Amino acid sequence: MSLWLSGIGVSRGIVIARVQKLHAGDLDIPERTLDAGDVDGEIVRFVGAQRRAREQLHEVRDKIPPGTPNDIAAFIDTHILMLDDRSISDTTIGHIRSQHLNAEAALRKTRDALIAVFEQMDDAYLRTRRDDVDHVCARILRVLLRSERQLPQKADAEPFVMVADDITPADIILLSQQHVAAFVTEYGGPLSHTAILARSLGIPAIVGLRDARRLLREGELVIIDGEAGHVLATPDDVALAFYRDKQQQQRQYRASLVKLKGRAAISRDGVHLRLLANIELPEDAKVAEENGAEGVGLYRTEFLYMNRKDLPSEDEQYEAYSRIVSAVSGPITIRTLDLGADKQVDSGRTLGPTPNNPALGLRAIRLCLKEPELFRVQVRALLRASSLGRIQIMLPMISNLQEFRQACAAIDAVRHELIGEGHRLAAQVPVGAMIEVPAAALASPMLARHARFFSIGTNDLIQYTLAIDRVDDEVNYLYDPLHPAVLQLIGRTIDAGVDAGIPVAMCGEMAGDPRYTRLLLGLGLTEFSMHPASVLEVKRIIMDSDVGRLRRAVRELLGCTELQDMRDRISALDA
Amino acid sequence: MSLWLSGIGVSRGIVIARVQKLHAGDLDIPERTLDAGDVDGEIVRFVGAQRRAREQLHEVRDKIPPGTPNDIAAFIDTHILMLDDRSISDTTIGHIRSQHLNAEAALRKTRDALIAVFEQMDDAYLRTRRDDVDHVCARILRVLLRSERQLPQKADAEPFVMVADDITPADIILLSQQHVAAFVTEYGGPLSHTAILARSLGIPAIVGLRDARRLLREGELVIIDGEAGHVLATPDDVALAFYRDKQQQQRQYRASLVKLKGRAAISRDGVHLRLLANIELPEDAKVAEENGAEGVGLYRTEFLYMNRKDLPSEDEQYEAYSRIVSAVSGPITIRTLDLGADKQVDSGRTLGPTPNNPALGLRAIRLCLKEPELFRVQVRALLRASSLGRIQIMLPMISNLQEFRQACAAIDAVRHELIGEGHRLAAQVPVGAMIEVPAAALASPMLARHARFFSIGTNDLIQYTLAIDRVDDEVNYLYDPLHPAVLQLIGRTIDAGVDAGIPVAMCGEMAGDPRYTRLLLGLGLTEFSMHPASVLEVKRIIMDSDVGRLRRAVRELLGCTELQDMRDRISALDA
Repeated sequence: MSLWLSGIGVSRGIVIARVQKLHAGDLDIPERTLDAGDVDGEIVRFVGAQRRAREQLHEVRDKIPPGTPNDIAAFIDTHILMLDDRSISDTTIGHIRSQHLNAEAALRKTRDALIAVFEQMDDAYLRTRRDDVDHVCARILRVLLRSERQLPQKADAEPFVMVADDITPADIILLSQQHVAAFVTEYGGPLSHTAILARSLGIPAIVGLRDARRLLREGELVIIDGEAGHVLATPDDVALAFYRDKQQQQRQYRASLVKLKGRAAISRDGVHLRLLANIELPEDAKVAEENGAEGVGLYRTEFLYMNRKDLPSEDEQYEAYSRIVSAVSGPITIRTLDLGADKQVDSGRTLGPTPNNPALGLRAIRLCLKEPELFRVQVRALLRASSLGRIQIMLPMISNLQEFRQACAAIDAVRHELIGEGHRLAAQVPVGAMIEVPAAALASPMLARHARFFSIGTNDLIQYTLAIDRVDDEVNYLYDPLHPAVLQLIGRTIDAGVDAGIPVAMCGEMAGDPRYTRLLLGLGLTEFSMHPASVLEVKRIIMDSDVGRLRRAVRELLGCTELQDMRDRISALDA
Repeated sequence: MSLWLSGIGVSRGIVIARVQKLHAGDLDIPERTLDAGDVDGEIVRFVGAQRRAREQLHEVRDKIPPGTPNDIAAFIDTHILMLDDRSISDTTIGHIRSQHLNAEAALRKTRDALIAVFEQMDDAYLRTRRDDVDHVCARILRVLLRSERQLPQKADAEPFVMVADDITPADIILLSQQHVAAFVTEYGGPLSHTAILARSLGIPAIVGLRDARRLLREGELVIIDGEAGHVLATPDDVALAFYRDKQQQQRQYRASLVKLKGRAAISRDGVHLRLLANIELPEDAKVAEENGAEGVGLYRTEFLYMNRKDLPSEDEQYEAYSRIVSAVSGPITIRTLDLGADKQVDSGRTLGPTPNNPALGLRAIRLCLKEPELFRVQVRALLRASSLGRIQIMLPMISNLQEFRQACAAIDAVRHELIGEGHRLAAQVPVGAMIEVPAAALASPMLARHARFFSIGTNDLIQYTLAIDRVDDEVNYLYDPLHPAVLQLIGRTIDAGVDAGIPVAMCGEMAGDPRYTRLLLGLGLTEFSMHPASVLEVKRIIMDSDVGRLRRAVRELLGCTELQDMRDRISALDA
């Protein structure tokens, strides 16, 4: 008899292969009190383990084959940097010295405190950084405990499905060179590192499948549908035939995508759509341009502020912005600081107690308006870098017109200050609003009279509109990009932009998800910003679409008062 | 020279009187370790202090003059009940016994832990219950420390302005009998007990005026404007003349309100509007009906679940609902449980870790659908009480159609179950949706095809639409009932109800705030549910309004794309 299991599909593709389980072996961390004379020796033992962990990561990094997407190496680099971060090493050494703790227990204490800080964060993406802390500390702990996590060493070339509790970025890189065909993990969500890396490497993956290691047998044949999130164990011949056929179709489709690299994103009825990239590193810009992205629709600046005690200086920020601006030939939309007051914790500046609901608190533009000096330093660096390329400034979390105008006035003041100091700036640095608060979408006709562009941030917009925190496992089932309320807010924002003659982009996950491309075209979206890896597939759908027909169909379906009728019409868009 | 100070105006009225300061004397709590032989004696000392505190509260309660609004006594009763709550006494005695702590330090420990629980709560109203814990514990502590808080004993009858750090409900009652003319406190917000009680007693009050005790001098003459939140110290003759005139006008206006008690709420152009009451206790129903409320628009059921270790049984709930239903002659809308998972802490049932953003988490209808037994018990009690009056069931936090239908199916199942058991139920128990999530307001045309009524909860609707937590001091400046987005969502919900032929009420604070009555009439609202004390004033405005004209004016202003133009048109509605 076959067994159907369902998890969260995070990287698409059909795989038919045998299960191989990765037995993590939970770390059993001893705690003991040292004699005073043993303290120095224990510190030396900790530093040695840290060094060995660093060597291991460099070994992994050296094994990354040429041509691998850059974000893979970036994950390892992040871990290497974190290994040397004083918030880990100094604190642990402090625990050993002051409390006479053994190295393992001291490190566990450091790790637990750091993880607690990351778990407070309200940005889903940044919160996944807790996994970095966990993985890095686990690596040092394994060295201390001499408990190596054994990856399978396959002599034969048969592909396999790796089933594990969780997989570190380093493991993923090593496994990707050992014929791993798919990943199934018990933990993690769509934004986990496993998910992001699997998508980058094009390896099908399902996460959050609880009890996967217990329910699946070592060596049994399984079918993995990485899009639907399904695992079918011990499939019968009918299922095998069905999925082999589906697999074949998908292979042909992927091969056809590569041919689109140099092509423009023009629909069947001749509408030219702009595809843009969300990028993190200067190197990403190259991949994006190869795939036909015409610029950068979202460059996040939070990384400059994270994992450090102080704030980045103007010159340090200027250097970072200059590097990215120089690497991108098209226009680049840079989002100003999108952190909350709660995240200032690790920069050593506590701004009062952690709020009860940080997602509804002092964050992003609200924090910048409250701390003008924080904002001024960033804007100075941004405007100085504007002479090197085509920068646009995007303000996150705008909820009313007054704060948008207040931020624009602050930017204008900085511009005059810099000109007075003799700096050369670009003649035009358009300032736009990120539309991610329901109030901003509803008031978009008013905002459009003042903003030079809009960019719809669907991730937060959906969360606030439905009053859910997607990272909260208890309610993430309510997250629904197709909720009629969400479609109305997107449509309204696009219409307001068109009426006012300003461009409207979308930089949330919806923009790069091919399941929604036709719907968004129908809603009138003309600029899609996404992970560079998604560009070709979205382009394929655009080239196959009749934008005029989609707009008519979507206008009609938005008027539905019967939910099922609306859902049916949305499904029919893909027909 | 005069001094202008600004706080949060929470109870209206002009007062011109001299300052009298209440010196709290911060409690200095000693901590010491007891000898084993002294433990029993210390427990006896604690129990004695608890008894004396109870006597004090009974003395205060006996001094409440007849005719005082019921919620005043209710506050004192709450404190008396809390004094005897085992979460205070058993825990404190436990600390004394197990840790050999002195009674003061043990009680402080109990208090701090309880306050931490209340501060986690996401409902602004319930969170103010932390003040009850604080006041009750402070009262016992004062007995233990023999540090009585000295209220002024005024022999003369000259009215005065009480300036204090914070004022307990008991103090307010005592002060109200001593010619207190107004309250000014350094702490507290619009939902604090001081604010609620001052409004009930009709005493002007300003809260949250930091440093008030330092900035105002004992005995100096001040003008208090309880609506604007202004304090003008040492006013000149021009200011005095201006405010005396304003005061006179307000007195005449208030006198005119009393005459409206028996009148119907019919506008100048003959539209009959329904005024309903938000009530807590059966006694409130009488005041509400005297003032002309035609029924109860919101009865909250959370109190049954709070401050206890177990869950209320079906019979206990049935008793409570029966009492309220019997006391109300009109229809009564009962809201099902509106607690979050985080609040289950004090019922001893921990449902996983506290979420990062409880306001965006598992709460209200989400929790009820996840815990069907919790919901079933409440619905059984509600339906059984339906035979005694005209009950409507209101479901809070609805964000999509599926969850509304799922809850209705659960209610239907309970109805069949009860009929099968031979219970007599009302033939009709309409089930409606509370519209407080932006998605519900936007999808109201779909919901209206299934719900039997809507009730707009403006407090939460505004918070989610603007992505703010009003209880978070850092962002509450963004709270704005006049934000164009809020007006659109209210208007859209009312229109959807009218189109579907179902009634639409409003039970948030906006409905009882006379500043918004004309705007809401213009948006098409026909049912206003509010604190019983607000009914007459809202009725006055309705009787002076031309609903037809307001609807035309509001329809036009909703189309404004210039914010200032919209604001001007809103102000003009009151002209």
